[in-house]
Order: sequence, then structure tokens, then C-alpha cells
Amino acid sequence: MPRRRSPDTRRLILDRATDLASVEGLEGLSIGRLAEALEMSKSGVIGHFSSKEDLQLQTVEAARALFEAAVIDSQASRRAEHGRERLAALVESWIAYVASEVFAGGCFFWAASAEFDGRPGAVRDRVRALTQRWLETLEAEVRLAQRLGEVSDDEEPAQLAFELHAFVQEANWARQLLDRTDAFDRARRAVERRIAAAAPGALAANDA
Amino acid sequence: MPRRRSPDTRRLILDRATDLASVEGLEGLSIGRLAEALEMSKSGVIGHFSSKEDLQLQTVEAARALFEAAVIDSQASRRAEHGRERLAALVESWIAYVASEVFAGGCFFWAASAEFDGRPGAVRDRVRALTQRWLETLEAEVRLAQRLGEVSDDEEPAQLAFELHAFVQEANWARQLLDRTDAFDRARRAVERRIAAAAPGALAANDA
Repeated sequence: MPRRRSPDTRRLILDRATDLASVEGLEGLSIGRLAEALEMSKSGVIGHFSSKEDLQLQTVEAARALFEAAVIDSQASRRAEHGRERLAALVESWIAYVASEVFAGGCFFWAASAEFDGRPGAVRDRVRALTQRWLETLEAEVRLAQRLGEVSDDEEPAQLAFELHAFVQEANWARQLLDRTDAFDRARRAVERRIAAAAPGALAANDA
Repeated sequence: MPRRRSPDTRRLILDRATDLASVEGLEGLSIGRLAEALEMSKSGVIGHFSSKEDLQLQTVEAARALFEAAVIDSQASRRAEHGRERLAALVESWIAYVASEVFAGGCFFWAASAEFDGRPGAVRDRVRALTQRWLETLEAEVRLAQRLGEVSDDEEPAQLAFELHAFVQEANWARQLLDRTDAFDRARRAVERRIAAAAPGALAANDA
């Protein structure tokens, strides 16, 4: 049953691809594997992609779009006032997104990071650029919170972003490998405490 | 050139296998790939392993032995007094170990976690058990530090271990994917500060 290359079919394929890739890896993606998972013919899948790398890159873009819609452009993130409140909302939206298991294998970008960090090429470059951009979004919000007087000037934005980012990646890891259902609550506690410790008055926490 | 199944050859093969697996994944390991990397004949490699899973499991054990020797049984860890000093020494030994790039692809267990978290079986079970044991080692040291009066009783050992563990995994991720050479120093700063905040007197940090 060959199909036209409709945008809807492409979206359906990529939706399944992000899910499969989170479990089996981007390298495990193939036209055959996708056709099987979608109960489509290979010919229905193949026309949408010019190469395996194109399939991988389009899958990364699909995951990016889902992430941005659910985290950066979420109602919770957009409604929060800029500063500490927005910083907390961004991280909480991210935790909720990963915890909701949108992808069967947990955080798409975490899985793609581990798979591609040692494989030079366009896929690694794109995954790297997107995760870098997310870290920079968090850093920019820390800087803005500092200008607003809500985060101590002693905090280095990149350091605070590193720590907050670490808690969420750790939760994803603990959930996926150790089946720890409490992992996201641990991340929430760590994030809440760390953001509280970054407040201008929280001196003891800024001593170290 | 067929070889006898000497323990030295086996060790040589497994040493290369841990390195290859950290870059290309445990699933990428094969007798052929190892023979090529070691410039040995396939017949020189094959006799040491009863199956692909056996090769993977033996590779995990080799990585475990390296980790334990370099981190848990390191001079720095053993010389440190039990309590906060030992906790800090264990985490610092781990950071130094990962930063030293013993494996070409960074932390072996992080890579294996991401690869096998979605693949049920003996390899996942073993990786899971070993990483779980490492977290429990950190938790036990936190509990001991509490009994010694060096860590606040308000700290939940599993939560503190989660956070310290998170910083090191984040550093490995940032080093491998983002090529951040400052990642391990960020982890060190985060660990030092977090352990300082866990001291019985550091009230502001324990408020959140």
C-alpha cells in the first residue's frame, strides 16, 4: 500500500521514530524497523528520507520540536515571571516532561547524547548544538535573575545551570536504569533547594 | 595464528573491549571487531568467550575491576578518615578517574547505562546492580558521617548520594558531548559546595 508523501504521514513516522530511538538508539532506526513498527510498507516510509542520516536528523528535529513545545513554550514556563520563578518553571517543566514518559526510553536527548558523543558527524553536531542551546537558555535566565536581584551575584550562571541540568539528567538515568520511580521527586527536591540556596541572602550556601 | 587461552591474552582482549565499548557501545562489540582492533586472528579471540553476551558480561566485569581499583580502593579513598573526608575522597577519586579518560569514550558505566537501560537481560541486570552498589557505597558513607556528627541529620543519605552522583555523571556527559574541558572542575565545585552545605551547622542550605 504505497502512500503519498503527506506531511501527516511524515509526522506519524517521525513520532514513532523518536520513541523507537529513545529505546533502541538512533543507529537502530531503519526504514525496515520503522515500517514494521508502524505496520506500513517500506515503500510508504522510504520516500520521506533521503538517507539514514537524513532520517536520524529529522528524528532529532522532531524531538526538538516536542521538547520546545512542552518545556520552553509550556504554559507554566510562559506564565512564570522572568527571574527565579521562570528558572524554576523551566526546570520543573523539563522534569514533568521527562517524567511523563513521552518517549518510551526516557529523555530522547540523553539517549542520543550517549549514543553519538563518540560518533563525529552531522547527528552529533546537531544533538550537541541543541543541548548546548538548552543549557544557554537556563544560563540566560540565571543572568536575568541576577539583574533582577533574585539570584546572588556570587553565583556563576554556567555553574548553576550545570547543577540544575545535572539533577534532571540524573533522574532520567535513575528512572531508566534503576527503575527508581522516586527519581523525579529527588530531582525536584534538589532543584528547589539549589535555587533557594542561590538567593542573595542564602549566605551559608554560598560560602563553599 | 591460533593462541592458547592464556589469562594474559584474555585480559588484553577485555582491556581493549572496555575501551571500544565506551565509544562504540557494548552491542557494537564482536569477535571480529576485537580481533581487528587488537590485530589478532578471530580464532585467537573467540576461545575466551562462549557467546556475545558472555563477552559483554566479561567486559562489564573488567570495567568494574578497573573502577573499584581506581576509585573505591584508591590510596586517596583508603587513606581518608571515614565520614565527610572519605565521602569527599570517594567522589574526588571518581572524578579523577573519569577525567583521566581511562576509557576513550568516557565513563564506561554511563555509556553502558544509556545503551542497556531499555534492553532487558543479563547485561542490563549487571550494570544496574553495579551502579546501584556504587550509589549504596556513597549512601553508607553519608550515614556513617551522620553517626560521626559530620553530616546533618536533616540530610537524607539517598538524596545526598543522588546529588553528588549527578554532578559527576553530568561532567562526563558535558565532557563527552560538549567537549567541555572545564566540566570536571564544575563537578568538583558542585561537590565541594554540596558536602559543605551538608555539615551540621550549614543551616541556610538545609532550609529548602
